[in-house]
Amino acid sequence: MSNSTISVGIIGGTGYTGVELLRLLAAHPNTDVKIITSRSEAGRRVADFFPSLRDSYDLEFQAPEVGIFSDCDVVFSATPNGVAMQHAPEVINSGAVFIDLAADFRLKDPEQWQHWYQMQHTCPELLRDAVYGLPELFFDEITNCRLVSNPGCYPTATILGLAPLLRENVIDAGSIIVDAKSGVTGAGRAANIATLFSEVSDSFKAYGASGHRHHPEIAQILQTLTADAKQHVGLTFIPHLVPMLRGIHATIYADQVDQSRSLESIHASFDGFYADKPFVDVLPLGSHPETRTVKGSNFCRIGLHRAAGSNKLVVLSVIDNLVKGAAGQAIQNMNIALGEDQTTGLLSAPVLP
Amino acid sequence: MSNSTISVGIIGGTGYTGVELLRLLAAHPNTDVKIITSRSEAGRRVADFFPSLRDSYDLEFQAPEVGIFSDCDVVFSATPNGVAMQHAPEVINSGAVFIDLAADFRLKDPEQWQHWYQMQHTCPELLRDAVYGLPELFFDEITNCRLVSNPGCYPTATILGLAPLLRENVIDAGSIIVDAKSGVTGAGRAANIATLFSEVSDSFKAYGASGHRHHPEIAQILQTLTADAKQHVGLTFIPHLVPMLRGIHATIYADQVDQSRSLESIHASFDGFYADKPFVDVLPLGSHPETRTVKGSNFCRIGLHRAAGSNKLVVLSVIDNLVKGAAGQAIQNMNIALGEDQTTGLLSAPVLP
Amino acid sequence: MSNSTISVGIIGGTGYTGVELLRLLAAHPNTDVKIITSRSEAGRRVADFFPSLRDSYDLEFQAPEVGIFSDCDVVFSATPNGVAMQHAPEVINSGAVFIDLAADFRLKDPEQWQHWYQMQHTCPELLRDAVYGLPELFFDEITNCRLVSNPGCYPTATILGLAPLLRENVIDAGSIIVDAKSGVTGAGRAANIATLFSEVSDSFKAYGASGHRHHPEIAQILQTLTADAKQHVGLTFIPHLVPMLRGIHATIYADQVDQSRSLESIHASFDGFYADKPFVDVLPLGSHPETRTVKGSNFCRIGLHRAAGSNKLVVLSVIDNLVKGAAGQAIQNMNIALGEDQTTGLLSAPVLP
Amino acid sequence: MSNSTISVGIIGGTGYTGVELLRLLAAHPNTDVKIITSRSEAGRRVADFFPSLRDSYDLEFQAPEVGIFSDCDVVFSATPNGVAMQHAPEVINSGAVFIDLAADFRLKDPEQWQHWYQMQHTCPELLRDAVYGLPELFFDEITNCRLVSNPGCYPTATILGLAPLLRENVIDAGSIIVDAKSGVTGAGRAANIATLFSEVSDSFKAYGASGHRHHPEIAQILQTLTADAKQHVGLTFIPHLVPMLRGIHATIYADQVDQSRSLESIHASFDGFYADKPFVDVLPLGSHPETRTVKGSNFCRIGLHRAAGSNKLVVLSVIDNLVKGAAGQAIQNMNIALGEDQTTGLLSAPVLP
Repeated sequence: MSNSTISVGIIGGTGYTGVELLRLLAAHPNTDVKIITSRSEAGRRVADFFPSLRDSYDLEFQAPEVGIFSDCDVVFSATPNGVAMQHAPEVINSGAVFIDLAADFRLKDPEQWQHWYQMQHTCPELLRDAVYGLPELFFDEITNCRLVSNPGCYPTATILGLAPLLRENVIDAGSIIVDAKSGVTGAGRAANIATLFSEVSDSFKAYGASGHRHHPEIAQILQTLTADAKQHVGLTFIPHLVPMLRGIHATIYADQVDQSRSLESIHASFDGFYADKPFVDVLPLGSHPETRTVKGSNFCRIGLHRAAGSNKLVVLSVIDNLVKGAAGQAIQNMNIALGEDQTTGLLSAPVLP
Repeated sequence: MSNSTISVGIIGGTGYTGVELLRLLAAHPNTDVKIITSRSEAGRRVADFFPSLRDSYDLEFQAPEVGIFSDCDVVFSATPNGVAMQHAPEVINSGAVFIDLAADFRLKDPEQWQHWYQMQHTCPELLRDAVYGLPELFFDEITNCRLVSNPGCYPTATILGLAPLLRENVIDAGSIIVDAKSGVTGAGRAANIATLFSEVSDSFKAYGASGHRHHPEIAQILQTLTADAKQHVGLTFIPHLVPMLRGIHATIYADQVDQSRSLESIHASFDGFYADKPFVDVLPLGSHPETRTVKGSNFCRIGLHRAAGSNKLVVLSVIDNLVKGAAGQAIQNMNIALGEDQTTGLLSAPVLP
Repeated sequence: MSNSTISVGIIGGTGYTGVELLRLLAAHPNTDVKIITSRSEAGRRVADFFPSLRDSYDLEFQAPEVGIFSDCDVVFSATPNGVAMQHAPEVINSGAVFIDLAADFRLKDPEQWQHWYQMQHTCPELLRDAVYGLPELFFDEITNCRLVSNPGCYPTATILGLAPLLRENVIDAGSIIVDAKSGVTGAGRAANIATLFSEVSDSFKAYGASGHRHHPEIAQILQTLTADAKQHVGLTFIPHLVPMLRGIHATIYADQVDQSRSLESIHASFDGFYADKPFVDVLPLGSHPETRTVKGSNFCRIGLHRAAGSNKLVVLSVIDNLVKGAAGQAIQNMNIALGEDQTTGLLSAPVLP
Repeated sequence: MSNSTISVGIIGGTGYTGVELLRLLAAHPNTDVKIITSRSEAGRRVADFFPSLRDSYDLEFQAPEVGIFSDCDVVFSATPNGVAMQHAPEVINSGAVFIDLAADFRLKDPEQWQHWYQMQHTCPELLRDAVYGLPELFFDEITNCRLVSNPGCYPTATILGLAPLLRENVIDAGSIIVDAKSGVTGAGRAANIATLFSEVSDSFKAYGASGHRHHPEIAQILQTLTADAKQHVGLTFIPHLVPMLRGIHATIYADQVDQSRSLESIHASFDGFYADKPFVDVLPLGSHPETRTVKGSNFCRIGLHRAAGSNKLVVLSVIDNLVKGAAGQAIQNMNIALGEDQTTGLLSAPVLP
């Protein structure tokens, strides 16, 4: 596969994950975007809709008709929740890889999915087949799979920050608190008073404190990572909105199981866990990752601390929600599923400042 | 006292707490700012330095000379740490009230103070006399006192969010986690690369994760609030920097002692605790306070939640760091110490958006 | 009038000019807001809709029914264009003063109005009666009038920056260029992709370069200000959007008629023109007004320069678009029309930073 | 040259143009950064100083010693003004190309240079040899030259917006007004109160209205572009500061010489002028370029309008000040001077949002 060009289709290309997919794929040496759909913008040039892409694309949005993706090797779905499940069966049957950037395939339990997303799932039988596309943990499952459920942005930052600690039984799985912060692009590109510049600029707030859709997604994966299957994951998750464009910052608190173990030892082990993972960067002890150090890139940077005045371990994990939290990770999954090197097209340095 | 004009002196008026004191005092019906000092700007008109005050003041900065405050009823010190302690004895001896907006009198233990602030304290004997100026908890002590230590901005938001829960033994004092976020004005008005627009805009980070000066200040006060003196306060405190001008948002996590008690009951009790406190606003259940709803005002707004997936109580507490977290609270303390109504000059509505 | 309380009605209180009216009226010693309407929010408490006002109002939105304002002394209309004209006749007939913060009465010529606003005017006969509510120029006309058309934010900043130069024949009226910049609240509080945080943050653009509704409004007033009625005003006006909440900055260029006149002389004359106008602050020569020096206040600050390399006069004029550009100026007009001192309730200092 | 790797040296790598050079060079397929100097950070890893580059560089800052660049093919100087002129003679003599991103070689007249930069020039004889590195106008001169003076950010956006109009005698050269706006990174990375987040966020201002160093630089180049050498360029230039990280937006006003010529005809000619220039994108008539559409990229986008109410031509020109206004253009110049394709390493799509 790696010597031929990958034909790409994109469902729903008018949102922020859509334009980010296009930006990143323009830098990928081995892909060609053949089809991009939008009901509302059918017939319009992509470059007219997103002038930032005027120098990169000469493609038009098309209406999403049956069979449109028949020549594609991979189809990304970058739509609101509930759309991907209408396309996935057809695409998979045609032999292409389907990668959903929304939440349609993120939960294994159809009832739980229907509870959180408040709609009927149209292909619940695929929930079990879908692979959770977090390559640092599920690389082998992604290889050669047909249906990838790309993780949410909060779950990506959170799970990467916790995986080494759970796998190696460093922390009490019942004591996890995730205080998470997101830039505003995480809310999507829809006409909405709550995300107007005039509503969120120069302010800060929590939201969903009594329950958020990313909670079951995170808990479901964390539960698979515990060193001892009998450990029950207890998770408190509170998201917040930051007046910035891009970035997730997860501040994670957990109790250390063996209080006698040194922070240096935990850090060395943490660092080792990700030693061969090109997109996870464990910072030296004492570091505080800033979201801007990953802006526009597929990297996740992680700092590890022990809090003064308690013995809580504190993990600071940052990603760009549109890249490692969405489009970049989706391309990483495509690379893996189609036998490319996972880093192909994804190593450009972050844009700072 | 309430029928005569209060003569005010300000030490160090060129920072953000200085200009905010001036703004708020211009709206106070019963004060007259007589003296404002600055070594670097002596001789310059305040209105030339802060053009926002051109319509409010016709005063010049003066060098801080001995005896300069002899006719003042109250002196605010709005300087970097270590300056107030050089002025406090003289001002107190002259019979005026001294209100320090910095940290010189915030800790009771001189050795602890010297550890955190890395300098010798020049009047440690005053540490015991200083009253911690959080009027919602220490109103009586502030009345008629001579030396007020104005609380830090993080401690104000945090302590107000925890006081009812500790006093009424609702939470386990050993389980407190405070994930705190501050606007950039909290870092002061000093030439510093780390707080340039180009360094902090469109980004988010934690800092001081391994130890911050506000930790001992918060812990010291929380310890006085426990229902049972034998309870030991365990506090994890991690501050973060938000790309906004003003605002503190404290997200507070704690274990509920009696799991059978309903959230409604706790909320009712919380609300009752502050029923007669004009500046603390307990929001209805389900609310998420935004920092912009207190911008420019002396209010603290608090939301109370129980987290999904755990039984953690979650308190969301917001203030404007320059008002309730600094200049506004200082004026509230002045009002109380001098027998004014505590709300005088402080009831203007927040500026939103 | 000045000893009795003014009964206030507000049409359409859910936008940014609505909440700003409420904020400013809460600080006015002599008004009582009796009625506030909103079709969509009828029955909801204002303080639930705008939590920043929880400490100031205990009022509910009402549906806008006929006769609802019969006990009001003044009615402000803070709605989208086209609504005020449906209410104005009834209110005026009831004896109250009607102040429109939108554009329904800003142009004298009904045809021109219909061209720019793309709807039929329902009371064109009132266009002639409406007084343009810029008190620094039309104070006498506002006194005792019944219908005030509150100026747009761009026109306010621009006209105040040009009036002394036109009245005293300092500049060539045919050479005026206004490069204007606005904060995002100027676009209003409506669900709109174009003003999402994610669309306008960290970016800058011009808009309406080929024609904007404020152009005829500005030109119409400037034409009344020329020293010689035969001078034709030639106006180029280009607006831009700044990623900030509040503020208008007009940069105005014009040719000086008498090149031999010194800048100092022009500045002295300019300053004299506004000597008795409490809300216009002419800065010393060499000054560059920042929008933040008027934030939250009713002031307009103006700097005057002569450009290097040409002999263009350059005027820099800043206001807060929601105060002097909308709600503050409306209250100033109310004060004047009802015989109050024009500054009543409007002298609070700007909020900086 | 194009088959061997280009050895790169960088003088002064700790500012924003330094980190941007490093980011862009990391994506260049044919360069190797061998040396980067910093007096203050000598011995420190670049990746420790700029964590965004942890995955791209394993290089240390070195002190700037004589002979250090002897093996380099090109040396970029990314320092404050006055440093490059101390290194240029040595580097040129060693046979390398020297590209100054500061202003040391931007003016031809030593006396004018000394007037504006307030220091003695140490190699005034090189001023005449230096080529002004604006490739769209001076491609041939840059080819095989040894000393490139990289244009300022304001001049780049302005000159590109005016060149076709001057060369083809469309506008009156005496009537040019440039109202320019810059993001805050344009002010550099130095500890400075005036560019703190708390000073410039949520505000807007003009600066240097009575004279700015970019004025003589722009005027000098514009004068070379007039269709008729006897035409005198009259230029009014007023810069403004926008609360955003990156971006220049120049709004340019000029009188059209032949009023009968249609805007469509001018636009077609303008578009043709840049038809073979890969980094200049002339937008369709009616377009308003946003700075975010070039963020992180080397593109310049230009919109052309005729103002309502006058016959002024209005040109809207945007670039990223750190890329086309600094580091990207410097690399474009390197490519040209060393015989590479000018676009090598510079075609990545802008990061939006």
